[in-house]
Amino acid sequence: MLTLTEEILTKTIRVRPNDSYKGTFGRVVLVGGNANYGGAIIMASTAAVYAGAGLVTTGTDTNNLSSLHASLPEAMFVNYYDKVKLSHLVSYATTVVIGPGLGDDFHSQEVLASVLANINQSQSVIIDGSAISLLAANPLDIPDTNLIFTPHEMEWQRLSGIKISDQTSDANQLVQQQLNATVVLKKHHTEIYTGKNIYQLPIGTPAQATGGMGDTLAGMIGGFTAQFDNQENAVLAAVYAHSAIADELARSQYVVLPHQISHALPMFMKRYAN
Amino acid sequence: MLTLTEEILTKTIRVRPNDSYKGTFGRVVLVGGNANYGGAIIMASTAAVYAGAGLVTTGTDTNNLSSLHASLPEAMFVNYYDKVKLSHLVSYATTVVIGPGLGDDFHSQEVLASVLANINQSQSVIIDGSAISLLAANPLDIPDTNLIFTPHEMEWQRLSGIKISDQTSDANQLVQQQLNATVVLKKHHTEIYTGKNIYQLPIGTPAQATGGMGDTLAGMIGGFTAQFDNQENAVLAAVYAHSAIADELARSQYVVLPHQISHALPMFMKRYAN
Amino acid sequence: MLTLTEEILTKTIRVRPNDSYKGTFGRVVLVGGNANYGGAIIMASTAAVYAGAGLVTTGTDTNNLSSLHASLPEAMFVNYYDKVKLSHLVSYATTVVIGPGLGDDFHSQEVLASVLANINQSQSVIIDGSAISLLAANPLDIPDTNLIFTPHEMEWQRLSGIKISDQTSDANQLVQQQLNATVVLKKHHTEIYTGKNIYQLPIGTPAQATGGMGDTLAGMIGGFTAQFDNQENAVLAAVYAHSAIADELARSQYVVLPHQISHALPMFMKRYAN
Amino acid sequence: MLTLTEEILTKTIRVRPNDSYKGTFGRVVLVGGNANYGGAIIMASTAAVYAGAGLVTTGTDTNNLSSLHASLPEAMFVNYYDKVKLSHLVSYATTVVIGPGLGDDFHSQEVLASVLANINQSQSVIIDGSAISLLAANPLDIPDTNLIFTPHEMEWQRLSGIKISDQTSDANQLVQQQLNATVVLKKHHTEIYTGKNIYQLPIGTPAQATGGMGDTLAGMIGGFTAQFDNQENAVLAAVYAHSAIADELARSQYVVLPHQISHALPMFMKRYAN
Repeated sequence: MLTLTEEILTKTIRVRPNDSYKGTFGRVVLVGGNANYGGAIIMASTAAVYAGAGLVTTGTDTNNLSSLHASLPEAMFVNYYDKVKLSHLVSYATTVVIGPGLGDDFHSQEVLASVLANINQSQSVIIDGSAISLLAANPLDIPDTNLIFTPHEMEWQRLSGIKISDQTSDANQLVQQQLNATVVLKKHHTEIYTGKNIYQLPIGTPAQATGGMGDTLAGMIGGFTAQFDNQENAVLAAVYAHSAIADELARSQYVVLPHQISHALPMFMKRYAN
Repeated sequence: MLTLTEEILTKTIRVRPNDSYKGTFGRVVLVGGNANYGGAIIMASTAAVYAGAGLVTTGTDTNNLSSLHASLPEAMFVNYYDKVKLSHLVSYATTVVIGPGLGDDFHSQEVLASVLANINQSQSVIIDGSAISLLAANPLDIPDTNLIFTPHEMEWQRLSGIKISDQTSDANQLVQQQLNATVVLKKHHTEIYTGKNIYQLPIGTPAQATGGMGDTLAGMIGGFTAQFDNQENAVLAAVYAHSAIADELARSQYVVLPHQISHALPMFMKRYAN
Repeated sequence: MLTLTEEILTKTIRVRPNDSYKGTFGRVVLVGGNANYGGAIIMASTAAVYAGAGLVTTGTDTNNLSSLHASLPEAMFVNYYDKVKLSHLVSYATTVVIGPGLGDDFHSQEVLASVLANINQSQSVIIDGSAISLLAANPLDIPDTNLIFTPHEMEWQRLSGIKISDQTSDANQLVQQQLNATVVLKKHHTEIYTGKNIYQLPIGTPAQATGGMGDTLAGMIGGFTAQFDNQENAVLAAVYAHSAIADELARSQYVVLPHQISHALPMFMKRYAN
Repeated sequence: MLTLTEEILTKTIRVRPNDSYKGTFGRVVLVGGNANYGGAIIMASTAAVYAGAGLVTTGTDTNNLSSLHASLPEAMFVNYYDKVKLSHLVSYATTVVIGPGLGDDFHSQEVLASVLANINQSQSVIIDGSAISLLAANPLDIPDTNLIFTPHEMEWQRLSGIKISDQTSDANQLVQQQLNATVVLKKHHTEIYTGKNIYQLPIGTPAQATGGMGDTLAGMIGGFTAQFDNQENAVLAAVYAHSAIADELARSQYVVLPHQISHALPMFMKRYAN
């Protein structure tokens, strides 16, 4: 198992070319946030915007429209039950994030199916939160794409069938390779299973142990994969940056709020751009 | 009567264990905020989130969904008239806060009854604001639990039957013991009646005398009891921290806004964690 | 004509008594904000809260509920078409502010009539913005109270019948005495006509010349009259503080936003409290 | 082609006259923001307010009312389908901005037609975003006015018929003169075609390449043309200020968020006022 270091940031975060425009930095579509968990998709979308994604659209319940725009006017909105618009947006996206606050009822299932039916080979697709549990319960055919799962240990148990106590790196890697996906296994010292390697995150703080942290990470991975060419490095850098910012904030804070990590992204990323 | 000191903070606020996750720091469900008093439950929920509670759900009127998520995406939402969902959330909570902005009509009464019917022995339940007045007017059977009342003097008069002018510590303690509950009697130099002792708060400022301060305190008690093992100390530390932060802000402010106290919590708590 | 000086601040802003509670600092009810001008009543309410009023309730169109609580959870809400609740709140208020963003259709007229029918002798009532124009067009019997009008020059022309070019201090005072009210005539070097004197404001900046400044002033007068005993001084101090803060901000800003004045109030007032 | 310099700021941004009021600084009406793109018109309106426009009204979908007022109480609201109110506001405006987030369906077309039918000679009209594409697809008679188009290269291709690869300054100027309008062609080193000259913007940063930047620029042009007499200089100064602020923020940020540019405007403009 390889240990992730700060070097992944300098390897990944590139100085932007002068002659670029918003399209250069990708289209991210984030789907989630039912009538109860709207904050989750707002936090994920905030992370994608502050990470520098070119264009961000949030597919969510109409109940979340006002709160989304009140705090994040930079994101566009689509009703996630509007299959025509959602399908179109998903098919033209650079990166799709599905899951934060999606919920687990049959409506959630329907939205998930509708998103997965429209993805394609040229994209990265981050599957997070309840989307993982839904897939574990009702496997769906997923078109060939760059797939990234971001489960915590219990979600990984549901998806992989490996009990938390049996989640060794060998056992995890076996299922990860069957899934033909990158797996970000969120835990104390998060592990990232890519096609080639297993990485371990040596940093992070218990001040991050609060609701919404995972949503923020999913949005960051969305923003990084949309902008940076090397998709494996983009995932690794997002995971590292998420905890590195938390560590910095935790020097003076007992708890770190998820939105604070997003708001710190533009200055943090600047320090590593080269 | 014992005098509370800063020591309660160092005794209570623990450095977080490295191997922790959001579940470690408790599930807080806060219920209140009718169509007129939505700000109260938003302020209480904000306090719980910024105090470091692991997972926070706000049970309130649907009218308050947008404003809740616009300022606090970290909180989850439940319609407090949805008895099935609310009962389920309450029964799995570590701490329940009921009352901020709940109102006093028969809908409020119904929500209160539905919450109290689902609490259990392993929880702490903070009863605040109009929930106290409702209980005084219409006593309900409360299941055995760690009960904490946070009345101001007039609410205590309604609940205890003791007129404000007769609220001596002896008289108060007698009723508090019959109630078998902790009582935080909010006044100039707030008094806390626990099972064993009576504590007096020697700090605080008239800059705190503004609407929403009590809601913020209730949310802080929710956040502290959800995280810290010793429930008596958790209540005492929350009461102390609330006024200590206000004192600090009041050095440069004529009035202290409730949300400012919540936003100051992460840095304040860090200074005392050990 | 007397010139207002900084002294009015030290004469008015008192150190708060230690043994005080939110009721000590008054109940302010602000009424306005139709479906088009909701921001006006939010800005006025924000000013009242940050000025230190004990309890603030905003009577406005239900369309403004979410935005009010999203930015100002400290304010309570009432639907201004709910005559039963509004009348009750108005009759128990210390200070009533009517007009910011109220509009000028028959609904506005109805709300105005319903507010004025419920005021009483012990209150201060600030009549601002479109409420002034409505009264000019359709005079209503106003119960005996401490009445404060806050017109700009055109609104004063409508109310007093004096053309802007003829608004001399003598002419203004004559009508002001017939109205038996305080008149805050907003203009370059605002003039305040009280029962006894005429004051002129020697400070202020064209950086204040932006929509919402008057709403903020009305809310500040609401907050000051609710807290401070001498009602004449409270009006004068609010007018002075409003422009003094703007002058300070305008040293580094080309334009001063209304909400910035409100947010600066707690620190500004602290400097003058004695 | 002339190179724009910082001098355009000192030439344009005037110290405000002492005896001014909000009407002195113009009425800006901004129209856009359908149910999906509400954030765009909020960002444009924010720019107009923070640039110092006297009175700002936002014509948008009712779905955007709450989020508009939650973050920008200084703006007034009008339902853009309310033709009576919208026409009235447009005809009395100093400057009209149409397009940010307007969308491209037949509702958008109807709103655009209704706005253009009510403009007049004394105004400046900024046509941005989807309004440009709509006009390219369905040309409308535009009354004689000071017209300003703000296309990016693809929108300019649609409007002018010149392919991006053929967009030389000569070709662009020819069409611009036929249009009898100012054209702000947004690209790396934006070009501004006025009646007399062609200017090139020598500053700017790829940190600006993010959704909402164009909306913010449109709102700034709205705010500048409403306040400053020389309409050509107002456009040039707004374009320059937009990128100059971005350059300053980009010294410490990897990406610059559109709303950050607006919030920086009051202090930035102060430095150049003379």
